[in-house]
Formats: sequence, C-alpha cells, structure tokens
Amino acid sequence: MRLVTYVSSASPSPRLGILHGDTVVDPARVLRADRAWRRGDSAADHAPEIPDEMVAFFEGGTRAHGLAEQALAIVDAAAGRGDALVDGASPAVLATDGVRLLAPVPRPRRVRDYLTYTEHAAGSGLAVPPAFAAMPICYKCNVETIIGPEEPLLWPSYTAQLDFELELGFFTSGGGRDLTPAEAEKRIAGVTIFNDVSARDIQMFEMSLTIGPSKGKDFCTAMGPCVLTMDEVDEWDVQMSASVNGEVWASGTTKNRQFSFAEVLAWASLDETVYPGEFFGLGTVGGGCGLELDRWIQPGDVVELAASGVGVLRNPVGERREAPQGSGVASYQGSPEVHVHREH
Amino acid sequence: MRLVTYVSSASPSPRLGILHGDTVVDPARVLRADRAWRRGDSAADHAPEIPDEMVAFFEGGTRAHGLAEQALAIVDAAAGRGDALVDGASPAVLATDGVRLLAPVPRPRRVRDYLTYTEHAAGSGLAVPPAFAAMPICYKCNVETIIGPEEPLLWPSYTAQLDFELELGFFTSGGGRDLTPAEAEKRIAGVTIFNDVSARDIQMFEMSLTIGPSKGKDFCTAMGPCVLTMDEVDEWDVQMSASVNGEVWASGTTKNRQFSFAEVLAWASLDETVYPGEFFGLGTVGGGCGLELDRWIQPGDVVELAASGVGVLRNPVGERREAPQGSGVASYQGSPEVHVHREH
Repeated sequence: MRLVTYVSSASPSPRLGILHGDTVVDPARVLRADRAWRRGDSAADHAPEIPDEMVAFFEGGTRAHGLAEQALAIVDAAAGRGDALVDGASPAVLATDGVRLLAPVPRPRRVRDYLTYTEHAAGSGLAVPPAFAAMPICYKCNVETIIGPEEPLLWPSYTAQLDFELELGFFTSGGGRDLTPAEAEKRIAGVTIFNDVSARDIQMFEMSLTIGPSKGKDFCTAMGPCVLTMDEVDEWDVQMSASVNGEVWASGTTKNRQFSFAEVLAWASLDETVYPGEFFGLGTVGGGCGLELDRWIQPGDVVELAASGVGVLRNPVGERREAPQGSGVASYQGSPEVHVHREH
Repeated sequence: MRLVTYVSSASPSPRLGILHGDTVVDPARVLRADRAWRRGDSAADHAPEIPDEMVAFFEGGTRAHGLAEQALAIVDAAAGRGDALVDGASPAVLATDGVRLLAPVPRPRRVRDYLTYTEHAAGSGLAVPPAFAAMPICYKCNVETIIGPEEPLLWPSYTAQLDFELELGFFTSGGGRDLTPAEAEKRIAGVTIFNDVSARDIQMFEMSLTIGPSKGKDFCTAMGPCVLTMDEVDEWDVQMSASVNGEVWASGTTKNRQFSFAEVLAWASLDETVYPGEFFGLGTVGGGCGLELDRWIQPGDVVELAASGVGVLRNPVGERREAPQGSGVASYQGSPEVHVHREH
C-alpha cells in the first residue's frame, strides 16, 4: 500500500490518502461515504474509524491497515457500479492531478540519517574506520525544513556546491526502549525516498571538527512521494536511481548495507526511547550523489529520485538565495570547493 | 529575573515561576490573586494576562517581563501586610522546598550545542581546524531526554566512561531568518546551565566517522535550575564551576569564546528559520569536564554545576543500566577507553 499525505482545494488541511491507480483514495472519507450510502447520511458518523493522519495510521497497526484495504475494495466496487463516493461535500476519491502531495510526514518527531552503505562512505573520501562495522552511526537532520514532491530544493546563499543524495529510509510505527532486532522489526511502518540535500563545500569544511554537519544539511530535505508499507518491501532489494533533467546519473540497490532496518532501530532504542513516526535514513546508495560523481546540479535542473515500489520523488532546483547584507557572521568567508575523484 | 518551570502538589502541570528569595512566585496566579483581593473573587479573570508557560513568556517580551516585575512588587507588598496571595485554591507564592523544578523548557523545539571555547576543543584532544574560527559549528542534541535539577543522570548500559560537561547556553525569545547579529541580540531570552552528559568511550569511537555523536550524547542532558534573563547577564563574564561530591573539579568563565551569543544565533538563522524557545549551548568551558581532567564520575556521585547569577544545577549520578539480553546489535562489542593527558 502506498500511503500519502495530501491537500486539495476541498481539503486544505493535510490528510492521509492511498495511491490507487490514477487516484488518491481518502480511506476515512471512503468508509464514511460507504456507510452513508448504505444506511443514510446520518450513519456516516458511525463508520469504522480510521486515522486520517499518517503517524496515527502507523500506530493503528494491522487494524488500520485492514480498514484501508476495505476502503480500497469499496472504491473498486463503487467504480464498478459507476458511483462516486462523497463524504458530505468532500470527494473520497480524487484524481492525482487534483491534489498536492506533501512529505509523507510533514514534520517528523525526529529524523536521523545513518551511514550503512560501505560504498558511499568510501566514495565520499571519508575514511571508513572500525566503528562503521560495529554499530549504525547517524547524524541528526533538521525536522523544520522538510519539503515534499515538486517543491524547489532550497539553494542557500552560502554554498556554490549544492548536491542531492539518493536514499531510502523507514518510519517507525511504534516506539520502545532497549528493543531487540526482532522487536524492532514489528515497529517499522514502511519506506520512502529521502533526498538529503547537501551543501558540499561548507559541509566538508564544518565536518573538520568531527561533530557533524549543520549548515551543510539543515536548510532543506525532500521526502516522498509516498510510504510503501513493509508488507510490500524487500529491504535488501529495492532498486534505486537518480536522474537529473531526465538523464540517469546514478543507480543502485539497497542490498550492500552493513545493518538491517531492524538493527538500526534496535540500536537507536538502546538506553533511550524511540517514538512512532520517527524517520531513519539508511544513508546514500553507493554512487548516489553528485559528490561521488563530481557532477553538480544547477539552478533550474530537475532532480528525480526513484525507488522500486515507492515511485519518483521529483524536485526542481531553486535559484541560489541572496542573504541580506550583514546577516550571518563576518568571519565566514566561504569554504574550499570539494572534488572527490574516484578510482575506477 | 530567575525564571523556573515548577510543579507542586497543588499544581501537577508545569507552570512558570520566578525564584524570589526562598520562594517560587507564580506571576500569573499573583496577578489574579491581587485582582481578586482588590475587586472581589469574580474579578480574577480580568487580571492582566501573563503567560504561565516559559516559551510563551519569552515570546511575551518586555510586556510579559514588566508584568512579572509587577507581580514581584505585589508579592513584596502583600508580605509587608502579612497577607497570603491565593488564586482560588492555589497558592501564588510557594516555598522552594515545596516545589519541584523541571528543566526550564522541558522539551525545547530544538537543542544545538556549539563549540565556541578554544580551550575545550584543544583539551579534548580534537584537532582545531580553520573552520573553528570561521563559523560557529554545532551538533544536535536529543530533545526527548532532557532532565531537570535533582534528577539522576542516566548511565547507559553501553558505557564505562560517563562524563559531565560544564556549559552555559541561551534560549531564543523570538524567531527569524537571515538575522544580523544586531537583530539576533534582541531575540535572546536568557541563559541556563547545561550539563551535556557524555559517554566518552562510545562518543569518540562513533565520532571517528566525523558525522557527530549520537549514542555518546543522546541518552541524557540536564538543564536548569532557572533561566537568568538577559537584562542581568554579562555574556562575557559568567563565572562557572563544576563540583563532584562537594569538591571543585573545574572552574572558568565565559570570556574566552570565539563568537558572541548574537553571532551564534545569526549564523544559525542564515538561510533557515529559527523559532522561539530553541536552546543554543555554547560548548564546554575550558577544563570543564572529566575527560579533560582524566577524572571520572561514578554511580552515586553528585555533580553540581554552578554559574554566577543562575545558581547550581545539581544531579546525582545514576547506577549503570543493564540492557535486556539481545537488545541493540550483536556487532557492538564495546569501545576503546579514552584518556586525554593535558600538558601543563
């Protein structure tokens, strides 16, 4: 099942939807519309309750998933009869070109990104120390600047080297502490595509302090277009590719990773609590960024990241911002350009 | 003014208070009690409104600050008359030993910690590269595990080297983007003490990947006891010390920093939005942690961090946790112990 968060002219507040053919199905509205159709308008309020928000849906577990499947069956049956499903004044099934998709969880409680692919770590020119194989290691992303499909990637004033990163990651459906990998596995809701947009020059400059990136990453992150639920995911066999202006720059799979989804989550939960709706990136697929290729996106380009089953996360590249005179700090006079040359 | 967030048997939900002599004054309740005393019980609802939550109080700016001062004057006048101020059934002035102080903002929107003291960076054995002088560089803390005064510091199962860090930091009173340092200066609410509790062995091991600490820091952070408002702070002359079981281990001041509060905030806001109630740590005062001294706290010890004007943040050290069999990842077999020897 491919879950989305959408808005439309009829629904300006974000709602949970399901991609279904060329449509977005609103499962909560479908169940209400169906109940009203069967038993009269006043019966809509007695329809089975299914969350209309993504994280609540994750927490709803198999019951929510079952109701969503029921909603899809109702949609197919209604289509067979030629009936439109309407909940009050709101359509329960919308054409995909009539909605706007947001990031699946517009502001996750936390977003962490782990280095789990050996190839990316080596290809970026970073040393790969023993700690890499011992435990999943992450940095923390900025939950305030997440964008969805079609929104422009923000190009900060202070960088000359904007870059994309081709990544997959998962959302948690449940929380806990001190989880074993077996327990963690039951708390994974599904996956989405994660474009960990990076300003490479300043990122490498600031990471010389070894405490991680901030200005190099925090300005913008793109996620979407949907969450593919785990019942349809083979975590070791997702095919991924990155295209710029229609040309494939990189492709790979999720197979060459040091740790499973469940191991990443179990490790994160050791001695500290994780919560439903958190996002865990798995790092960049080997070769899946401009840095590793020494090819650089420009304003006006269109970046498309694809993952089998999930779809395509498409974003245009914005114009470089101009910061007002006197903003920031006077001591910052730019970062050295970075160019990593891979040996073949 | 020394602002706290407190709970008491009469007020189990956290509320804003002001430390005033041996008491905690609840300014919202004082204004209501005073209005009721002057004009009858039914007038309490017409008292001037002052936020009863810390971040809302920050956002209230000079008006909220003025009302808080008015509340303190009312308390002094009532004490002179021998009157108790009571809002309905709730006392408006409480003995400090009758309340529990929480972290000033129990769950800040974001917490970042900057490396701004040259001495700590060098003393920790980290190289100090040119980027250090060019811009304030931070890592991101875990907002989910913040504790207040008197709560035990959590000792994770996976570390043999727990450590404290003696730090000061500030909260934002307003947000913005692309701020100049002059604009940023007006958006700083006040300071508190920040004990950036660290698991040194795993922290150094995971930081070998240069993307920053996570398991080494995320399990616990202590803050408090109060926010000293900026009208009473000289940011370059706060005297600080760290004591363990009553013995002073380290002392220093806030003067030897690379960047002002306003520069840190201005830099953070460049090309990305900051919000009211965010916390910015300024890094560890030179010598202000066990790592730099090669002295190590143990379960049952009591750590007291002091800052002039703010007071003392006191926390006992908890027992080392035992993680359940099979939790975490099997590949993790411990981290090398770290010992940094300073030259004198």
